Amino acid sequence: MKIEEIRMEELHSGKFIEQQVHDISSVVGSGIAINALSGGVDSSAVTMLGYKALGERLKTYFIENGLMRHDEPQEIVSLFEGLGVPVEMIDAQKQFFDALKGVTDPEEKREAITRTFYRDVFARLVRESGARYLLQGTNYTDVEETVAGIKRQHNILSQLGIDTEKSYGYTVIEPLIQLRKTAIREVAKALGLPEEIYRRPPFPGPALAARIIGEVTRERVGIVRSATKIVEEALSNTRAFQYLAILHEDRVTGVRKGQRDYGFQIEIRCWDSKDAITGAPTKLPYDVLDTLAERITAEVPGVVSVTYNITHKPPSTIEAI
Amino acid sequence: MKIEEIRMEELHSGKFIEQQVHDISSVVGSGIAINALSGGVDSSAVTMLGYKALGERLKTYFIENGLMRHDEPQEIVSLFEGLGVPVEMIDAQKQFFDALKGVTDPEEKREAITRTFYRDVFARLVRESGARYLLQGTNYTDVEETVAGIKRQHNILSQLGIDTEKSYGYTVIEPLIQLRKTAIREVAKALGLPEEIYRRPPFPGPALAARIIGEVTRERVGIVRSATKIVEEALSNTRAFQYLAILHEDRVTGVRKGQRDYGFQIEIRCWDSKDAITGAPTKLPYDVLDTLAERITAEVPGVVSVTYNITHKPPSTIEAI
Repeated sequence: MKIEEIRMEELHSGKFIEQQVHDISSVVGSGIAINALSGGVDSSAVTMLGYKALGERLKTYFIENGLMRHDEPQEIVSLFEGLGVPVEMIDAQKQFFDALKGVTDPEEKREAITRTFYRDVFARLVRESGARYLLQGTNYTDVEETVAGIKRQHNILSQLGIDTEKSYGYTVIEPLIQLRKTAIREVAKALGLPEEIYRRPPFPGPALAARIIGEVTRERVGIVRSATKIVEEALSNTRAFQYLAILHEDRVTGVRKGQRDYGFQIEIRCWDSKDAITGAPTKLPYDVLDTLAERITAEVPGVVSVTYNITHKPPSTIEAI
Repeated sequence: MKIEEIRMEELHSGKFIEQQVHDISSVVGSGIAINALSGGVDSSAVTMLGYKALGERLKTYFIENGLMRHDEPQEIVSLFEGLGVPVEMIDAQKQFFDALKGVTDPEEKREAITRTFYRDVFARLVRESGARYLLQGTNYTDVEETVAGIKRQHNILSQLGIDTEKSYGYTVIEPLIQLRKTAIREVAKALGLPEEIYRRPPFPGPALAARIIGEVTRERVGIVRSATKIVEEALSNTRAFQYLAILHEDRVTGVRKGQRDYGFQIEIRCWDSKDAITGAPTKLPYDVLDTLAERITAEVPGVVSVTYNITHKPPSTIEAI
């Protein structure tokens, strides 16, 4: 069945929400549904739709993978609590870092994270919850990219280790599959989610692991997390499309208290873009760049050097890996 | 014997040159002297002083190590030819690249270059020339840094593999040992050297090898050489103290013709500084940065990303390794 996009000009958020809530209720009936919340706009909107439809029969989990930004897990869980939506946090940090140990190839890192998430952590939660309905935040761009071969098809059931025969009895529900990001932001707003969610800049699936060149360890995530916090604080009031800090594997020479200090380098990217398809580095004033470099080298242990990416996309990409 | 600095305000270039030419003539007598010219202001001034004193009895060699900038070896030899000073170019590229094969540690790279230069290449030239007098561009800052323990003492004779006993009979002459860089530039100008020599921005001893993170191969030198040419063309009209391009070992994702292209990253540094002891990134206008990134990604094969270093010194250093 061909999936039809609902364009922004056709979207009526109120009606869309009503329809989806109705559909979810009809499909799940008196059953139990489960979903994973990351705090991104897609999974947040799905959580709200599911909760409106099912109330406590929706089991929402936030999986703490150790790769999120400063205080992010606590903040997201609290935010939903404030909206009356219960979310259970699952500490799976050890499992993720064990899976990432020694892995340096970007594709293998991504694979290790996906596998740990679905097969090791979420599969157990699905089994234990007894849920037969899985709510997923798949959107129209995901569908297009899968068709175009840019994204690999992610069949959630096979990723959970539920093979085709056993999959009989499981139902995947994808309420956002007809919408692109802008429409989802609109719906998220109408669902009563706060601006920090519906305006949230894009953040990659592998979280801070996508911002680390080379091995992902607790220590290295700590470095890029501190740098990310500083970059987000300094640049959140720009109108930039996205801004990020990347920890390099290359070491460079620095000097501390007159002594040679072979340390780390952080790369900052800040993008002007409408659609993420093309982009230009934001023309940040030099006093902003100065403050960024000063704070990062002063506050993040081991960092002696900070660069600003000046390449357009293409030939660059938004993220480094 | 304590070496006394000749300060800028005490320096009379004409008299200084006269004195040094006289001293070199007296010491060498009717003998033969040898020196290596790199094109830097120090070795260029020494070459001129030596030639004024000895004429054709000075054997000057330019060692082509494969690590110099675009056309640099040819240009320097021609420049001295134009001044009537004969310089012989020695092609030692293979020896340097063989010595650098597989070496990634910055100190070991430096060591491999120094060893190849002195022990393998220059030692042979000294032996074959029959020269017993070695002219060296050691300056007052080198002396200070050796005393302070920042620089290792480089005894040229031991580096040439001439041990203390055999060293009897060799004489090292260091005409610039009482001068700092600014005074040497003054003397170089008075010696009739052109502005491109006496105003030459600092360039590291290991040449482009100092601008490569990771292994130094012919291919990687080619990449950083092309990037350096673009950076020097674009920034030579700034009043910056120094500007450079660095090839990183880290690979980053890019996109070419719609295809993912896992490519190289070039880092640009451009310094405002008076003395190299402290420094600040030059506030280059964004249209200059744009042009740099555009040209480097378009003209240098494999490069998909360009950054600009925004760190002050300290905690950064001028060079990356």
